[in-house]
Amino acid sequence: MELALAVANVQGMTAIAVGLILGMGALGTAIGFGLLGGRFLEGAARQPEMVPMLQVKMFIVAGLLDAVTMIGVGLALFFTFANPFLGAVTG
Amino acid sequence: MELALAVANVQGMTAIAVGLILGMGALGTAIGFGLLGGRFLEGAARQPEMVPMLQVKMFIVAGLLDAVTMIGVGLALFFTFANPFLGAVTG
Amino acid sequence: MELALAVANVQGMTAIAVGLILGMGALGTAIGFGLLGGRFLEGAARQPEMVPMLQVKMFIVAGLLDAVTMIGVGLALFFTFANPFLGAVTG
Amino acid sequence: MELALAVANVQGMTAIAVGLILGMGALGTAIGFGLLGGRFLEGAARQPEMVPMLQVKMFIVAGLLDAVTMIGVGLALFFTFANPFLGAVTG
Amino acid sequence: MELALAVANVQGMTAIAVGLILGMGALGTAIGFGLLGGRFLEGAARQPEMVPMLQVKMFIVAGLLDAVTMIGVGLALFFTFANPFLGAVTG
Amino acid sequence: MELALAVANVQGMTAIAVGLILGMGALGTAIGFGLLGGRFLEGAARQPEMVPMLQVKMFIVAGLLDAVTMIGVGLALFFTFANPFLGAVTG
Amino acid sequence: MELALAVANVQGMTAIAVGLILGMGALGTAIGFGLLGGRFLEGAARQPEMVPMLQVKMFIVAGLLDAVTMIGVGLALFFTFANPFLGAVTG
Amino acid sequence: MELALAVANVQGMTAIAVGLILGMGALGTAIGFGLLGGRFLEGAARQPEMVPMLQVKMFIVAGLLDAVTMIGVGLALFFTFANPFLGAVTG
Amino acid sequence: MELALAVANVQGMTAIAVGLILGMGALGTAIGFGLLGGRFLEGAARQPEMVPMLQVKMFIVAGLLDAVTMIGVGLALFFTFANPFLGAVTG
Amino acid sequence: MELALAVANVQGMTAIAVGLILGMGALGTAIGFGLLGGRFLEGAARQPEMVPMLQVKMFIVAGLLDAVTMIGVGLALFFTFANPFLGAVTG
Amino acid sequence: MELALAVANVQGMTAIAVGLILGMGALGTAIGFGLLGGRFLEGAARQPEMVPMLQVKMFIVAGLLDAVTMIGVGLALFFTFANPFLGAVTG
Amino acid sequence: MELALAVANVQGMTAIAVGLILGMGALGTAIGFGLLGGRFLEGAARQPEMVPMLQVKMFIVAGLLDAVTMIGVGLALFFTFANPFLGAVTG
Amino acid sequence: MELALAVANVQGMTAIAVGLILGMGALGTAIGFGLLGGRFLEGAARQPEMVPMLQVKMFIVAGLLDAVTMIGVGLALFFTFANPFLGAVTG
Amino acid sequence: MELALAVANVQGMTAIAVGLILGMGALGTAIGFGLLGGRFLEGAARQPEMVPMLQVKMFIVAGLLDAVTMIGVGLALFFTFANPFLGAVTG
Repeated sequence: MELALAVANVQGMTAIAVGLILGMGALGTAIGFGLLGGRFLEGAARQPEMVPMLQVKMFIVAGLLDAVTMIGVGLALFFTFANPFLGAVTG
Repeated sequence: MELALAVANVQGMTAIAVGLILGMGALGTAIGFGLLGGRFLEGAARQPEMVPMLQVKMFIVAGLLDAVTMIGVGLALFFTFANPFLGAVTG
Repeated sequence: MELALAVANVQGMTAIAVGLILGMGALGTAIGFGLLGGRFLEGAARQPEMVPMLQVKMFIVAGLLDAVTMIGVGLALFFTFANPFLGAVTG
Repeated sequence: MELALAVANVQGMTAIAVGLILGMGALGTAIGFGLLGGRFLEGAARQPEMVPMLQVKMFIVAGLLDAVTMIGVGLALFFTFANPFLGAVTG
Repeated sequence: MELALAVANVQGMTAIAVGLILGMGALGTAIGFGLLGGRFLEGAARQPEMVPMLQVKMFIVAGLLDAVTMIGVGLALFFTFANPFLGAVTG
Repeated sequence: MELALAVANVQGMTAIAVGLILGMGALGTAIGFGLLGGRFLEGAARQPEMVPMLQVKMFIVAGLLDAVTMIGVGLALFFTFANPFLGAVTG
Repeated sequence: MELALAVANVQGMTAIAVGLILGMGALGTAIGFGLLGGRFLEGAARQPEMVPMLQVKMFIVAGLLDAVTMIGVGLALFFTFANPFLGAVTG
Repeated sequence: MELALAVANVQGMTAIAVGLILGMGALGTAIGFGLLGGRFLEGAARQPEMVPMLQVKMFIVAGLLDAVTMIGVGLALFFTFANPFLGAVTG
Repeated sequence: MELALAVANVQGMTAIAVGLILGMGALGTAIGFGLLGGRFLEGAARQPEMVPMLQVKMFIVAGLLDAVTMIGVGLALFFTFANPFLGAVTG
Repeated sequence: MELALAVANVQGMTAIAVGLILGMGALGTAIGFGLLGGRFLEGAARQPEMVPMLQVKMFIVAGLLDAVTMIGVGLALFFTFANPFLGAVTG
Repeated sequence: MELALAVANVQGMTAIAVGLILGMGALGTAIGFGLLGGRFLEGAARQPEMVPMLQVKMFIVAGLLDAVTMIGVGLALFFTFANPFLGAVTG
Repeated sequence: MELALAVANVQGMTAIAVGLILGMGALGTAIGFGLLGGRFLEGAARQPEMVPMLQVKMFIVAGLLDAVTMIGVGLALFFTFANPFLGAVTG
Repeated sequence: MELALAVANVQGMTAIAVGLILGMGALGTAIGFGLLGGRFLEGAARQPEMVPMLQVKMFIVAGLLDAVTMIGVGLALFFTFANPFLGAVTG
Repeated sequence: MELALAVANVQGMTAIAVGLILGMGALGTAIGFGLLGGRFLEGAARQPEMVPMLQVKMFIVAGLLDAVTMIGVGLALFFTFANPFLGAVTG
């Protein structure tokens, strides 16, 4: 039964790590898009004829802005469904 | 009965992780929409003829702004109803 | 009686998680609406003829601003009345 | 008597959670209304003929600003008088 | 005598919760009224003929600003004189 | 003698709570009056003929600003001289 | 001798509480008077003929600014010389 | 079975480290691109004829901005799938 | 010898409290005088004929700014040379 | 088997250190390049004829900006693959 | 030998208190003089004929700014060479 | 085997110290060069004829800016490869 | 051998205190001189004929700015080479 | 072997102290030179004929800015190679 305690220790730590990744990622993304989108709406309101171009550019920036967070989300999903940290304990 | 303690440890840590994801996500989303929506209302008040275009653009930004938080909400729901971290302890 | 301690551990952690979700959500929502509503009143005072349009737009932003917090409130209520984290301990 | 310790653990954690909900909610609401009301008084002093309209609008924003905090207050009251987290321990 | 320790645990946690509610509430209210009252005095100094109207409006905002804090104060008083968290331990 | 330890636990926690209430209340009140009084002196220096009116208004705001802190001070005094949290332990 | 440990626990906690009250009070008062006095000197340098009036007004604000801190100082002195939290332990 | 506890200790610490790397990296990247992209959209809205040049330049800056975070992501992936810290414990 | 441990506990806590009072008081006073003195030098450089009046006024503000800190210093000295918290333990 | 615990202690601490180095380095680099790149895009939009010169200069600054972080990354890699802190324990 | 542990406890706590007093005092003084001296150099550069008067005034402010920190330094020296907190333990 | 635990204690603490030195150094350097390089690019864009002179000057400042961090990096490397803190334990 | 543990306790605490004094002192001094020197260079660039006078004045301010930190450095050196806190333990 | 534990305790604490001194010193120096050097480059770009004079002045300020940090670096080196805190434990 001591093995169960070791496994529970790893799983609990992994859950906290997933919470940190998703929580800080969501916080950063929301503030980043708040800054970026505000500039986009400002530019769109001033020069409406340039909206299609600006929107394409904003999507490019959005892709970059989201990239690291999305990798974090992917890893968090992986940790959740097939915790790679467990292999060394149970194996 | 020691198994119950190990399971309780994992469940308690998961509850804190869910709290971190939802709390930080809600904080970031609210501040982000406060910044974004303020710019939107400002632009709408200055150029009312452009409101439909601006609103569509704001929804696009809103979709991006909410994306990571929504993934976090989904994962938090999953953790809640079918905790994937438990399998390794009880299995 | 050791089962009671394990259950109490999970319940106490869940209570703290509920407190984090509701506390940070309320903090973020209040600050977000303070920023958004200030812009709305400013726009309404400058161009009173546009108030109906601005108000509709503000409600749309408000819906987005509140969305994640409301999901958090729903989950917090669910945690409170039928704690899903307990099943694995008592079951 | 060990049951009493488990119950006391849950009750103490719930008290801290209630303190977090009410404290952070009150902090956020006060700062939010300070920002919102300052804008309202500013607008009222500049265009006194528009005060009734502005006041109605401010109440609408105030309703939104207070909403999540009020839900938190309701839950905190519920936790206080009929702690739903105790059922699983004492039941 | 172990019951005394469990009761003392709950009472001590409740005292800290009361301290959090009153401390954060007082901090928020003082800063909020500092912001709001500064705007009020500024408006009153610029347009003295509008002071009665502005004062009435400020009281309305003050009522909203204080509302959540006052609920917190009420709950804190209740916790102090008839701690509802104790019933489950001593009952 | 174990009762003494339980009582000492409650009394020590209450002392910390009193320290939090008075410390955060004093911090908030001082900063709040610094903001409010600066605006008052500014207005008084610009329009000296309006000082009596402004002073009356400032006292009204000061009453609101101090209200919650004063309730906290009252409760802190009560906690100090007749700790209501002790009844359940010693009674 | 166990009584001595209980008394020492209460006295140590009270000392920390006194340190919190005096430290945060002094910090707040110094910053508050820095803001208030800077505005006063600014006003006095611009309109020297109004210095007596401004000074009287500043003293009134200073009385309000110091009030809560002074109550805290009084309570801290009381805690120091006749610790009211000890009665319940030694009595 | 003591070896399992040592392995679990290393794995849990590594999980927290991975969470710190991904969380802080995502937070920094999102805020950095929010600042950078806002400037880019501003420049693009003012001088649309220069958008291709600005976009190329922004990608160059983006590469630099992402570099350290990407190295961190790579290391985090490595830690996850083949924890190099385990060799010394299990070997 | 257990009495010595209880006394050492109280003395150590008092030392930390004295450190908090003097450290936060010195921090606050230095920042406060930095703000106040900067305004004084600014006013003195602009209107040198008013320096004597401004200096007298600054001393009055300085007396108020230092008051609470000085009380804290006095109490800290008292704690140091005749610790009033010890009486209850050793008496 | 006690040696395994000592080794696990060193490895766990090293993992946290690697997390601190990579996390804080990525955070700093991202914010630094956000500030630097924003200035670069601004300058490039205003004077497009000077872009090649500005870009060369920016790379020079980028090299300096990244230098310490890159050393940290190198050390972190070294810690990961051949932990130099282990020699003294296992040797 | 237990007396040595009690004495070491008091001495260690006093060392930390001395570190807090000197560290926070030095931090505050340096920032305060940075603000004050910048204003002095600014005034001296604008009106060089007034430098002697400004310098005398700055020294007066400097004396006030340093006062509390100097008292703290004196107390810290006293704690170091003749720790007054030890008398009650060893006496 | 107790010696191994003592050595592991020193090595773990040294690893954390190295992490603090490299992490805070990299954070500071990146922000510092972000501020410095932004000014350099600004100056270079305004007066391109002065770029060689400005660049030389920037390198001089960069040398000073990096100096302490580089010393820290050197010490961190020394700690890593030949931990000088171990001699007193193992010697 | 228990004496060695008591001595080690005091020496370790003193080392941390020395680290706090030197670390916070260096941080404050660097930021203070950054503010002060920036103003000095600004003034020197605007009015080069006044540089000698400004430099003398800056040295006077620098002496005041460094004073408390230097006292802290002196005390830290004293703590290091002849720890005055040890006498009471070993004597 | 207990002596080894006492020595390891002192050495570990000293390592953390060295990390604090170097980390905070590097952070402060980098930010300070970022502020100072930005002003220097600004002044050099505006008045290139005054660069030699400004550079000499900047070096003087740099010497003052670095002084305390350099003392800290020297002490840190001394702690590292000949830990003066160890003499009292091993002697």
